[in-house]
Amino acid sequence: MVYANDICREMTKESENKTPLHALGEAGIHQRIRECRIPSRSETFLGPGDDAAILRPKQGQELVVTKDMLVEGVHFDLMYCPLHHLGYKAVSANVSDVVGMGAEPAHIVLGLGLPPKFTVEALDAFMEGVRHACARYGIDLIGGDTVSTLSDFFISITAIGYVETGRSIVQSGARKNDLLCVSGNLGAAYAGFLMLDRERRIFLENPEVQPDLTDHTYVLERQLRPEARTDIWEQLKQAGIRPTAMTDVSDGLSKSCFMIGRASGLGVRIDLERLPIHPGTLKVAEELNMDPYHLALHGGEEYELLFTVPMDAYAELQKIENITVVGFMEEDPEAFRMIDSSGKAFPMQERGWDGFEN
Amino acid sequence: MVYANDICREMTKESENKTPLHALGEAGIHQRIRECRIPSRSETFLGPGDDAAILRPKQGQELVVTKDMLVEGVHFDLMYCPLHHLGYKAVSANVSDVVGMGAEPAHIVLGLGLPPKFTVEALDAFMEGVRHACARYGIDLIGGDTVSTLSDFFISITAIGYVETGRSIVQSGARKNDLLCVSGNLGAAYAGFLMLDRERRIFLENPEVQPDLTDHTYVLERQLRPEARTDIWEQLKQAGIRPTAMTDVSDGLSKSCFMIGRASGLGVRIDLERLPIHPGTLKVAEELNMDPYHLALHGGEEYELLFTVPMDAYAELQKIENITVVGFMEEDPEAFRMIDSSGKAFPMQERGWDGFEN
Repeated sequence: MVYANDICREMTKESENKTPLHALGEAGIHQRIRECRIPSRSETFLGPGDDAAILRPKQGQELVVTKDMLVEGVHFDLMYCPLHHLGYKAVSANVSDVVGMGAEPAHIVLGLGLPPKFTVEALDAFMEGVRHACARYGIDLIGGDTVSTLSDFFISITAIGYVETGRSIVQSGARKNDLLCVSGNLGAAYAGFLMLDRERRIFLENPEVQPDLTDHTYVLERQLRPEARTDIWEQLKQAGIRPTAMTDVSDGLSKSCFMIGRASGLGVRIDLERLPIHPGTLKVAEELNMDPYHLALHGGEEYELLFTVPMDAYAELQKIENITVVGFMEEDPEAFRMIDSSGKAFPMQERGWDGFEN
Repeated sequence: MVYANDICREMTKESENKTPLHALGEAGIHQRIRECRIPSRSETFLGPGDDAAILRPKQGQELVVTKDMLVEGVHFDLMYCPLHHLGYKAVSANVSDVVGMGAEPAHIVLGLGLPPKFTVEALDAFMEGVRHACARYGIDLIGGDTVSTLSDFFISITAIGYVETGRSIVQSGARKNDLLCVSGNLGAAYAGFLMLDRERRIFLENPEVQPDLTDHTYVLERQLRPEARTDIWEQLKQAGIRPTAMTDVSDGLSKSCFMIGRASGLGVRIDLERLPIHPGTLKVAEELNMDPYHLALHGGEEYELLFTVPMDAYAELQKIENITVVGFMEEDPEAFRMIDSSGKAFPMQERGWDGFEN
């Protein structure tokens, strides 16, 4: 993994070994991006190069379309975010939304806003991450647009997936008493962010200090190079478990609970003790003197799946690793509650990432 | 039409009547954008709100997907670009690419990067233009993402269209001796840009001067609020004329000629005298002492259609207004030539907008 000092060397200082983007021009940049395209999907009839890409879906399929954007200084900091990880993460974020619909991710359209400081080497590192993610998820890069910007570096991806007609899983399908389940563990990506942010501040105060982050490898990986949970979705399908509602937890658990609850006209009850929290996340909470439940409830960028299943699926669920039942759906659409170990109930706060808040 | 002084009042000065975006928060902004959504397409099965939108295409159709991005300070200047026109233009640019494939534009996914200076009123003005364009082209806004940025305002749209399987028109289908045709007229959008840029410089030097642009209404409209040529495509279909290759002229005529020529393995010959140039464009060229052919050949942002048809379609073509035969496809793939009124041949320069050039 690359950290602050290396990235600073890579991006913020002038370097004679780097090539300015205008040496390529727009056509050269497009060519560079197209080279990262290894078509693998039979539905991709025509890829980049023309006015638009052409998809030829199989009959009896629906298309699922989502868009997710990342902006430098808002969603990531190039001080500590290696570009190849960033490329991977941008794809994961979009794939996660497609999986959250119960669909098979298949294609991405990539938009890049590139500021003057960006070099050809930086573009290559970013695209290496995109290519890696496309291979990992079995998806095709089918087109996009690349523009120059005055100062911000931004990434805009539209992802497209397929699902059998009528088989998509939306947020509004939960029913009373359905079990509320979450994949993996919660709060780790946010814990990773907190560690990197602390490191960034230390570096800015004293560039000679090289912090040791080896204790925090797990949460850093979760922040910098998250995986969309296509594996969990595959396991659910193989076990014959069909969620009634599903979403990814990219805005944090509490926001996602409110989304499923409101869309389904139900309330949500969560047992705090059941929330899956990784030891690495607990360690960060301890170091920073924070409540680990706060990280698990309100940390975003998780890309875990939150879904509801009928109660009779409980036995089958137990056979799948990395899924935890954390609560259930309540009849009262106003009841969003958390229960602690003593049985005491607290109202759930709807908090998470909001880039427009003061 | 609104000009520099009004826009400056609207965007660059503080105003007590404007509402900061953080008063809405992300959820409020999404709500505001969703209100601009008037679903009209039967294929739109699920719109914004879930992880992704769901499309249910008819059987026997292909999907055409394109993305086009606009960045403040690079592609537009809020000094002279009214926000409702900008919303309209951003949609037109994407619709134009779908039409350039011979497909029916149907859906857009909208990504917005909003800087701190952006107000709720500015968002509403922009979305009014988006809504207007969606109604005009009969398309649905099906989803997207909205993020805050540090300084740049950017727009990223993905457009999706439908076409009967095997009926899309790509750039590689031109054949030897095919007629090269263009819709409307060329260079007007670039002429409009040159007028606005002159006005901007005058305004910055002396804000008291209110330039009179009434003589240039046509070219300003073409620059600020361009139309995608869905009408031309409809007329071609009704006349039973099927282009062998097609693209929009958004990067300028010369670039588009090279794209069709290279994709088809042919050369292009253009008769300069035939290039359709509007009197308003000629007037700008005269005022600025520029060659009008330069504007017509290398000006971008046109959204006219450039297409090739077999020679035997000539008689039918003549019946359609607003289409001009400007040249034909040559066998020699290296021959990109322009012929002047005396019959003299010049090599065609491949020049147009490249945001990454020095």
